[in-house]
Amino acid sequence: MRKNYLLTPGPTPLPPQVMESMARPIIHHRTPQFQAMLKEAVEGLKYVFQTNNDVFILTSSGTGAMEAAVINLLSAGDTALVVQGGKFGERWTEICKAYGITVEVIDVKWGKAVNPLDIEKKLKANPKIKAVFTTQCETSTGVLNDIAAIGKAVKNTEAVLVVDAISSLGAVDLKTDEWACDVVVSGSQKGLMLPPGLSFISVSLKAAKLVENSKSPRYYFDLRKAKKALDKTDTPFTPAITLVIALNEALKLIRQDGLDVVFNRHRKLADATRAAVKALGLELFAPESGSDVVTSVKVPAGFDGEKLVKTMRDTYGVTIAGGQDELKGKVFRFAHMGFIEEFDIVIGISCLEKVLTQMGYKFQMGTGIRAAEEIFLK
Amino acid sequence: MRKNYLLTPGPTPLPPQVMESMARPIIHHRTPQFQAMLKEAVEGLKYVFQTNNDVFILTSSGTGAMEAAVINLLSAGDTALVVQGGKFGERWTEICKAYGITVEVIDVKWGKAVNPLDIEKKLKANPKIKAVFTTQCETSTGVLNDIAAIGKAVKNTEAVLVVDAISSLGAVDLKTDEWACDVVVSGSQKGLMLPPGLSFISVSLKAAKLVENSKSPRYYFDLRKAKKALDKTDTPFTPAITLVIALNEALKLIRQDGLDVVFNRHRKLADATRAAVKALGLELFAPESGSDVVTSVKVPAGFDGEKLVKTMRDTYGVTIAGGQDELKGKVFRFAHMGFIEEFDIVIGISCLEKVLTQMGYKFQMGTGIRAAEEIFLK
Repeated sequence: MRKNYLLTPGPTPLPPQVMESMARPIIHHRTPQFQAMLKEAVEGLKYVFQTNNDVFILTSSGTGAMEAAVINLLSAGDTALVVQGGKFGERWTEICKAYGITVEVIDVKWGKAVNPLDIEKKLKANPKIKAVFTTQCETSTGVLNDIAAIGKAVKNTEAVLVVDAISSLGAVDLKTDEWACDVVVSGSQKGLMLPPGLSFISVSLKAAKLVENSKSPRYYFDLRKAKKALDKTDTPFTPAITLVIALNEALKLIRQDGLDVVFNRHRKLADATRAAVKALGLELFAPESGSDVVTSVKVPAGFDGEKLVKTMRDTYGVTIAGGQDELKGKVFRFAHMGFIEEFDIVIGISCLEKVLTQMGYKFQMGTGIRAAEEIFLK
Repeated sequence: MRKNYLLTPGPTPLPPQVMESMARPIIHHRTPQFQAMLKEAVEGLKYVFQTNNDVFILTSSGTGAMEAAVINLLSAGDTALVVQGGKFGERWTEICKAYGITVEVIDVKWGKAVNPLDIEKKLKANPKIKAVFTTQCETSTGVLNDIAAIGKAVKNTEAVLVVDAISSLGAVDLKTDEWACDVVVSGSQKGLMLPPGLSFISVSLKAAKLVENSKSPRYYFDLRKAKKALDKTDTPFTPAITLVIALNEALKLIRQDGLDVVFNRHRKLADATRAAVKALGLELFAPESGSDVVTSVKVPAGFDGEKLVKTMRDTYGVTIAGGQDELKGKVFRFAHMGFIEEFDIVIGISCLEKVLTQMGYKFQMGTGIRAAEEIFLK
């Protein structure tokens, strides 16, 4: 007997309504019954995206929607600007390069947010830039970029703004229309509290013109096909039916609370997590620009970060995330997104205190929990 | 209160074990726990594919795996041979053309199987052909192509054989290795008794060389990334975790029965369906080459085929499929694949008898059921 707890930046725990909905008998996708569900899903997504733009549902991981953004907007030889401050910023560059797109990179130190002025400067210096690829929450570092300010920098140029909101959508505020985000991509297994398997992409009118003109070869991720289908409340290919049904259950929960309540909850969970780890004498990896999505914490010098994460998971059933690529072993990432509330944080911090103690790290047990509880009491 | 019955060529009904498995709490994909599941899934797929080749699990509909086959094998300017005898044969051509691949087409009359000699002739006439794209069961017409014979025609040439087994895998025999099928693609929502959302692709050593050399741009469907990950029992991007877990449940059921038992069951269901509709005085659309996967039946002259399908579905809860594209309104398709047994066929035929009677079609009620029962009694 062991209970398992997920405090990872995707997948996130599933609400019981979501789990139950996937155990229902399957229905066919070319039926009025499913069409009504697809309509409801798209409307719910528009609410969460805060947009009147088209939102397409793809059957893929979030990376599929990232690729859809790149190949539907740009052709080989076009120029893109990519903000790169972690593993997922780098992914934009990799996808662009795979399709022969010239990439200008703004290299941001891992753990820092991009300065929107740098984007403005780059756009002025090179008017050939057709698209700016950004990451709202860089999941690998926990950093939140200021998309509102970036939107202002891009809005009055020829370029379109593309935002990877895979881990941030439904966790922190993202005003797609108000902030002039032309294309926003997201995934199902993060703030939307679903299993992985669906991705989402919204497209503004400014971006839709590029979609028509892109010469990049494409078929499965061709948004022209997706648009034609969406206009008939359909999908071009068989959708992941059970996940769309589950999406409606998750969207219902989000709409019942309202976005403000959801965002406030995430803020409180993040505040408590940050307060707890600081009270334990640990250092935040991104102290100035940490997101309310996932908190990156430096592994104290001389301690084995991978062992910490593994022990929490394999011995005690509490899964947090380790560092990726250049941060492997150097940070651990404590997620507080999706179907998570204060007692999940209490469990996570308690387990962290236990394993840190076992590893010989010196602090007074209960200090982290107390700091979290004080935040939750407010 | 109304019960719903699915007799469609995907999605197919889900076994209770599969449904239940998707309602479990989600687990993280980068864990020893999931790794063991992924290993089990790949081994189970190799059993169903009857292959020792690598089998990759993609998060997409079957079309995603078709695109993966095209772009990983061929580059713009290469020549492909496509067997086109229905909507899904045409899809191969569409994908190839989207990527600038020159397509030679063998146009087979809808409702007929391809003559393997025609493939042999084409390959002899044009040694530039690098890949032959075929469809085992052409779901739009119900036709089964003779992949064993096609394999013999392609085996000793430079070309690789690609088989779309999306609707046929796990329903009819497909000996990937013995028949020299270099690449086989399939999907989750057919014979494998899962919801849609996963696709599968096997790659022979002969095909793997093309994968290394293809210059087609690709990222999400890049099988070089998939191979690198598979060798570490991993996936390059977040997989559809719940569907992989459900896949293991479905594979367990298939392995418990054994492939021969599964294929025999499908044959009997198909025999009964064919006997029933013939007893009702209806005509098979593909009398010589009908598959044991789905039976296409001509709508009798003067009757509204779309109304027949809609009434069965919307009034009585029995979903069969109508005709697609040029067959719209002219055929209906009665599927007998996946988690289907004799009493499901009885329900389907009974509903068909009811609606045909209501539409004024003349026959003695019960005739179809009796013909089916006689087959089942054998």
